[in-house]
Amino acid sequence: MMIVKKGFRVEYDSIGELEVEKEAYYGVNALRANHNFQITGYKMDKGLIKAIVEVKKACALTNNEVDLLSDKKMEAIVAACDKILAGDYMDQFITDPIQGGAGTSFNMNANEVIANLAIEYLGGELGDYSIIHPNDDVNCGQSTNDVIPSAGKIALIRYFLELYEETCFLVDSLIYKSKEFDDYIKMGRTQLQDAIPIRLGQEFEAYATVLTRDLKRFNAAIDSLSSINLGGTAIGTGLNANVTYVKNIVPKLSEITGLDLKQNENLIDGTQNLDSFLFASSVLKTFAASLSKISNDLRLLSSGPKAGISEIQLPAKQAGSSIMPGKVNPVIPEVVNQVAFSVIGNDTTISMAVESGQLELNAFEPIIFYKLFESLKTLQGAIHTLRVNCIDGITADKKKLEQKVENSIGIITALAPYIGYQKSSQIAKKSLKTNIPIRKLVLEEGLMNEDHLDRILDLYKMTVPGIVAEELTEGA
Amino acid sequence: MMIVKKGFRVEYDSIGELEVEKEAYYGVNALRANHNFQITGYKMDKGLIKAIVEVKKACALTNNEVDLLSDKKMEAIVAACDKILAGDYMDQFITDPIQGGAGTSFNMNANEVIANLAIEYLGGELGDYSIIHPNDDVNCGQSTNDVIPSAGKIALIRYFLELYEETCFLVDSLIYKSKEFDDYIKMGRTQLQDAIPIRLGQEFEAYATVLTRDLKRFNAAIDSLSSINLGGTAIGTGLNANVTYVKNIVPKLSEITGLDLKQNENLIDGTQNLDSFLFASSVLKTFAASLSKISNDLRLLSSGPKAGISEIQLPAKQAGSSIMPGKVNPVIPEVVNQVAFSVIGNDTTISMAVESGQLELNAFEPIIFYKLFESLKTLQGAIHTLRVNCIDGITADKKKLEQKVENSIGIITALAPYIGYQKSSQIAKKSLKTNIPIRKLVLEEGLMNEDHLDRILDLYKMTVPGIVAEELTEGA
Amino acid sequence: MMIVKKGFRVEYDSIGELEVEKEAYYGVNALRANHNFQITGYKMDKGLIKAIVEVKKACALTNNEVDLLSDKKMEAIVAACDKILAGDYMDQFITDPIQGGAGTSFNMNANEVIANLAIEYLGGELGDYSIIHPNDDVNCGQSTNDVIPSAGKIALIRYFLELYEETCFLVDSLIYKSKEFDDYIKMGRTQLQDAIPIRLGQEFEAYATVLTRDLKRFNAAIDSLSSINLGGTAIGTGLNANVTYVKNIVPKLSEITGLDLKQNENLIDGTQNLDSFLFASSVLKTFAASLSKISNDLRLLSSGPKAGISEIQLPAKQAGSSIMPGKVNPVIPEVVNQVAFSVIGNDTTISMAVESGQLELNAFEPIIFYKLFESLKTLQGAIHTLRVNCIDGITADKKKLEQKVENSIGIITALAPYIGYQKSSQIAKKSLKTNIPIRKLVLEEGLMNEDHLDRILDLYKMTVPGIVAEELTEGA
Amino acid sequence: MMIVKKGFRVEYDSIGELEVEKEAYYGVNALRANHNFQITGYKMDKGLIKAIVEVKKACALTNNEVDLLSDKKMEAIVAACDKILAGDYMDQFITDPIQGGAGTSFNMNANEVIANLAIEYLGGELGDYSIIHPNDDVNCGQSTNDVIPSAGKIALIRYFLELYEETCFLVDSLIYKSKEFDDYIKMGRTQLQDAIPIRLGQEFEAYATVLTRDLKRFNAAIDSLSSINLGGTAIGTGLNANVTYVKNIVPKLSEITGLDLKQNENLIDGTQNLDSFLFASSVLKTFAASLSKISNDLRLLSSGPKAGISEIQLPAKQAGSSIMPGKVNPVIPEVVNQVAFSVIGNDTTISMAVESGQLELNAFEPIIFYKLFESLKTLQGAIHTLRVNCIDGITADKKKLEQKVENSIGIITALAPYIGYQKSSQIAKKSLKTNIPIRKLVLEEGLMNEDHLDRILDLYKMTVPGIVAEELTEGA
Repeated sequence: MMIVKKGFRVEYDSIGELEVEKEAYYGVNALRANHNFQITGYKMDKGLIKAIVEVKKACALTNNEVDLLSDKKMEAIVAACDKILAGDYMDQFITDPIQGGAGTSFNMNANEVIANLAIEYLGGELGDYSIIHPNDDVNCGQSTNDVIPSAGKIALIRYFLELYEETCFLVDSLIYKSKEFDDYIKMGRTQLQDAIPIRLGQEFEAYATVLTRDLKRFNAAIDSLSSINLGGTAIGTGLNANVTYVKNIVPKLSEITGLDLKQNENLIDGTQNLDSFLFASSVLKTFAASLSKISNDLRLLSSGPKAGISEIQLPAKQAGSSIMPGKVNPVIPEVVNQVAFSVIGNDTTISMAVESGQLELNAFEPIIFYKLFESLKTLQGAIHTLRVNCIDGITADKKKLEQKVENSIGIITALAPYIGYQKSSQIAKKSLKTNIPIRKLVLEEGLMNEDHLDRILDLYKMTVPGIVAEELTEGA
Repeated sequence: MMIVKKGFRVEYDSIGELEVEKEAYYGVNALRANHNFQITGYKMDKGLIKAIVEVKKACALTNNEVDLLSDKKMEAIVAACDKILAGDYMDQFITDPIQGGAGTSFNMNANEVIANLAIEYLGGELGDYSIIHPNDDVNCGQSTNDVIPSAGKIALIRYFLELYEETCFLVDSLIYKSKEFDDYIKMGRTQLQDAIPIRLGQEFEAYATVLTRDLKRFNAAIDSLSSINLGGTAIGTGLNANVTYVKNIVPKLSEITGLDLKQNENLIDGTQNLDSFLFASSVLKTFAASLSKISNDLRLLSSGPKAGISEIQLPAKQAGSSIMPGKVNPVIPEVVNQVAFSVIGNDTTISMAVESGQLELNAFEPIIFYKLFESLKTLQGAIHTLRVNCIDGITADKKKLEQKVENSIGIITALAPYIGYQKSSQIAKKSLKTNIPIRKLVLEEGLMNEDHLDRILDLYKMTVPGIVAEELTEGA
Repeated sequence: MMIVKKGFRVEYDSIGELEVEKEAYYGVNALRANHNFQITGYKMDKGLIKAIVEVKKACALTNNEVDLLSDKKMEAIVAACDKILAGDYMDQFITDPIQGGAGTSFNMNANEVIANLAIEYLGGELGDYSIIHPNDDVNCGQSTNDVIPSAGKIALIRYFLELYEETCFLVDSLIYKSKEFDDYIKMGRTQLQDAIPIRLGQEFEAYATVLTRDLKRFNAAIDSLSSINLGGTAIGTGLNANVTYVKNIVPKLSEITGLDLKQNENLIDGTQNLDSFLFASSVLKTFAASLSKISNDLRLLSSGPKAGISEIQLPAKQAGSSIMPGKVNPVIPEVVNQVAFSVIGNDTTISMAVESGQLELNAFEPIIFYKLFESLKTLQGAIHTLRVNCIDGITADKKKLEQKVENSIGIITALAPYIGYQKSSQIAKKSLKTNIPIRKLVLEEGLMNEDHLDRILDLYKMTVPGIVAEELTEGA
Repeated sequence: MMIVKKGFRVEYDSIGELEVEKEAYYGVNALRANHNFQITGYKMDKGLIKAIVEVKKACALTNNEVDLLSDKKMEAIVAACDKILAGDYMDQFITDPIQGGAGTSFNMNANEVIANLAIEYLGGELGDYSIIHPNDDVNCGQSTNDVIPSAGKIALIRYFLELYEETCFLVDSLIYKSKEFDDYIKMGRTQLQDAIPIRLGQEFEAYATVLTRDLKRFNAAIDSLSSINLGGTAIGTGLNANVTYVKNIVPKLSEITGLDLKQNENLIDGTQNLDSFLFASSVLKTFAASLSKISNDLRLLSSGPKAGISEIQLPAKQAGSSIMPGKVNPVIPEVVNQVAFSVIGNDTTISMAVESGQLELNAFEPIIFYKLFESLKTLQGAIHTLRVNCIDGITADKKKLEQKVENSIGIITALAPYIGYQKSSQIAKKSLKTNIPIRKLVLEEGLMNEDHLDRILDLYKMTVPGIVAEELTEGA
């Protein structure tokens, strides 16, 4: 017989027996998993803990409704869940976020903590699972394979909603700036070469527009994540779940979470295929690519202060260099770039994990959740600081911007419809070589009269669709 | 003065003069690009050539309507376009699919070929651009920066539609199989370990279901690609395009292509942001991940013939080995796996290209198109052979499948609600060790009577949601 | 004038003034960065903190040797560094691991903590930088741009050395198993189809061999990381660093760290190019791919227990299912797979970050370090558990393995040199169809005599290079 | 009985019979594969065809030496191989580069073409395999599983050698430029912000230096690819290969190919593990990342011509825009970027393929080769055009570069050691605000005398390690 260390209790599982700290709410399964998986050194995501507890609560209530769980047990389990949802007992979740086994360890951990809290609630001793059993009672009618993806989706939807809100703020901020800079005419560039005029406000409006498309895609991702396989149990066939429970569990969970959840139409498919997670990751990756492009633009446009493009000034938020005094760097866009790289790499990881499902289950949900949570949370932090510490404080010098356009070669494009592409090329080349302005060369060569030229070279009109070229037809 | 080689004509551009073969329909710009970009050794995609020519035709017609192109020129240009669309002159497109410059070389190539065909149509000499000018006439009111993404999207939509159709055939094939195998009860597996019974038909149905979700995502991708920036010219401000042309060009192009195209609401955004391509690539990647998972399953289930799982037989399509006589390999799913890996890697490339846009333009469309075309076309080829040479010919031995289930430990799960998780674990362990069937052990230990046991262990019922557990409540 | 909150002191930088908690060792720069970068919610890696402090110590000593730092200041700084190296004050490093600015914030944070500890050592008041200045003294002759990559490389080398050791243990373990299973003849499989015999020991030996190649690549990565740019200051030109200091600093740092560090031959290159980090990540990725392949094999071979391949048994380390009693899953290989996916995705992130350097600097080191640390640490954890909780406890049933081979079709291959590929194919097909063993069919058809057949079908000989076929020549 | 179409012959395999065009050198196996795999629409790589034929030739010679192949057969096979190596019959290789089955189809195709050419050589009729049998004779002692990876490695080594040479040319070109621009002092930039002076020659030297490291890594990749598993046959146990043949085959192949090939020490490992391909891909990816960074720099530095950084001019190689006359774009670096993105994405594909090996074989070599060939060939094309059409023609305006430095704020850094970081920050801020040069402000505030200031602000000295700061110590 095993001699139990002081302060410990003994628990049993199919592997054998194990000493668990007497005060611990987790049990043998969580503890074994803790030993088996020492990978990241981090704790399980709190949003995910909250979500799994909500699942357990919904299950207890629904199982009670179909007489599979007595009122007494149900009340105890619900009370246990509510305690955890109130924010305590987070330290009782001791399994590593990256774990083998499709999340079984985390599910077992939740079952054990809830069981023991419920046992305590009923006046029992921790570990006395004859009162409330982690598997038979807390996990009643459930399997890791329907609980874990359902909980993951709930947590993800909530992070998506937070990101959605933060992105809205960012879009608003960009639109505000686009109005502030509406009449700031500046050089437009393609391939980093001077092209034709644009307004600074138009640039910010374009940023707002692309991010607005991302908002729509967030909704598509959320929608895709809202279909859950709860009720399918181990492989989607619903074995061991009561028919009425299967029908009622998702509406109950919707009620508890306040989210609009649906049940997968095909629970077998819903258990083995994780494409909705990959789709969600792809949506984040697409968002990240656009954010990184915007950040690159901000860094380009603010390059300088003397020997760069220097068209905008980012607010100085910290000293830029430990050796170069007075240097201010675009640190905020730079952190956004890095988060974007991370999100894009995470998508590769998630692609591999989703591809690696086998037969009735994809056991690689833990890494998928881990990376998706990271992507969502770092994106949220990144765009928050981007808005507050960068976009909102951007300034520009209207006159300087306009001067650059006037000195540019790019305006020649507006003349091409009148004097032809080939002649225009010659004028442009000559202007660049001699430094004589385009306007002067055109007049000197008698290609257009001054009045006409003025009309064509109206910089503002050059930035508005069609206005310049309109007269082409009139005059044709 | 330059002495021109026999059989050549001289053309000029802003760089200088260049000899072009007298019979060539392309001109100086295409030829310079051909010299500058010797990268893949491949030809430009024919679908893309067709699409750019349709764009040019639509532009000629619309410019004519707003009096920017004379009837004579328009007719000549349209005739030229129709000749190319009829399928000839493909060899005149001589720029490498991977090229610098946002597709300018390819656009210039198209302008030149069309101009020269139009010149020929009007009885002029090739290269006499005073008759029809590649830039002033064929490219009238256009820029590479609105023509190329628009043409790319048209070509992509068509490949998506083909893939959509081929996927529908595959889904139908899977559904057909799911019906054929509807009552083939077999072992379900999670984490490659025996779990609980499932029917082979349910497995095929799950495959059909996940791919049906991909069909919906294809539609979202097509929808996203249907917004084009034609009319925006160089940077989306529409400089040099006539207002009425800007309004009419996309409806005209819709008419010519037979596709339901819309104009970007914000043409500046539409010119610089390529997120719709990344979204399309992500949709393909998600599809690829599911296809690869299915292919892995088929390879697993057909492993053997003697020492594997051997639950299904794939049709033998070719001898499997140059050294091992009689070996037949799952070569068809294997090629699907490889295409999937390619599509997932292409998505990384496209992510980087989309992220790398700068200011008013993303100049990296050529690589994006190149990889997207590859993804789309290889996926189409892969799923065609998957259906025809694999899925349609899959067979299975119903009896053998059922026997395996009966001998398995997995059926213990169905007893857990009656005898508890812990007792069930012990029975399972004992059965595995002693090789005594679960059923016998349960009876021996007097845990249930035979009648009840028979009802619970009805294999078919174990594969249907809720049926088994229903009695739990009744009996509770 | 600013009214300072109780318990706070005021610090100044080029942005303005800021209240810092009176007891804090960090200063204004760290605090601003903490506000600007709320991204991961995690702390800076302790190995990296240790490394930067070692750099600072080496710099103080070397600057003192060239009379740029007084003995008094040097002693105070060294004492401060030693305190941190002893393990305290970790909580004073308050900048997020993902931060903009190439690590300036983290470098500033280190400068400040060291300066304040040194000030305290000299009896001054925290924040009185007239005694020891974070930039002028602690950062003397340094720049973020040489300090941060150097510190990063030191931390990475150490993690690589730990991983190296853990991998050696794993290789030893695999070799031990390869000897244990040396005469376990089993079916070899290609493309999951029965091929020809192999010994289980050979399989484990192959695993050991591929990982041994990884060990060599670890050395190459370590070697590549050992070249550091300390002494180059801001952009590699060494501005503001004393010539003798530049010569002596890396040897000094080697001494302090106990690592064999070299100075980049070209410090400008060393400052702007981060290819050595990408090479290191690639080496980890290659390792991860092999580990994942091995893990997949272990999961395949242990599939079952009844309806799978079931050739080996992994040790049962935890209950496998919350619903399926008695189920034991391959959770340890599964966690290795997931870590491998993570490492491969991290490589994508690092590729993008390395590619994104601009001109004299790559400002994206923070994300590179963050992901590399994650890859290294999770790999270490993963292979530790793989060895201890899986490989070491693997068992197999020799007899069962051999039986499967004897019943297989695969052995026909050994006969092909004698009876030809085509005839062999027919025999194989017939055997599969009729279930009559190959050996019987060959004898029945009189293709070989029994004695010869026995010699050729010696299973052990079939697993040793050349032995069987040797007689081909003899007999030829 | 089958009625054979005119112009066709009938061939048989284990699947059944098939009509093959009478004149075809390929046979039933190649034709089935051609039908099964319609994926890319491209032809097999010619370098790979050449390599497999060299393998076959080496095998025929070595099998003859050990009396497994008669002189007559050997001579016929060698003659057949030589004909193909002379460049004809490429059209007889009809299997898609992306194919299932680990390259069996391609190996079978080679066996058939060689057999039929040998049959023809001996005066037989195409398809009469009683004369020379594709499997028994041409494939004697071989398996797809040792032939294909060996041939792939040979082809890859050759492409690597070509890339090596082209990279050497590029490095030479960069070094040449670094000398030409050795005394062109310009603004150095970190994080796109003005930092401290550097010389344009130093920038080009840094480019040459990083690429020189890639050359070393190319050698490591070549070395890694030089270990081949020929002799291992199906799974590395060497079944059906003669012992002396196994010993002699690789030296023979080295002789024929002119490459320094070694045999894998562990042939089982060599057959199942493709890590050397992933390592090779990683080396290309690292190269690609550096090339892309250099290309980005070239595009940044040549941005303008008026409103950009405009420090260097890239040679104009083609007109840049179809709408903007006179515009010249950095099209050559842009194509390099795109190839780099492709190579990085290909590495993701190859990672997945290498990870997906199972048990005794990795069947995914076809996609690995396909992507590696693409990476190698497009890189070669890209850096060729980069050198010839870009680097070699770069020009810069020395005076303009220097002027920008003199007007910059960045030079303040050199003063910090004398006047302190904090004071320097104030001066820098003031200069930026008032546009009064740093030098003037320092003199006005009496912080240094003119003579000293001149010595410190010597721009050239600021670009040479240690020179400026040296006096710090002297003066200390």
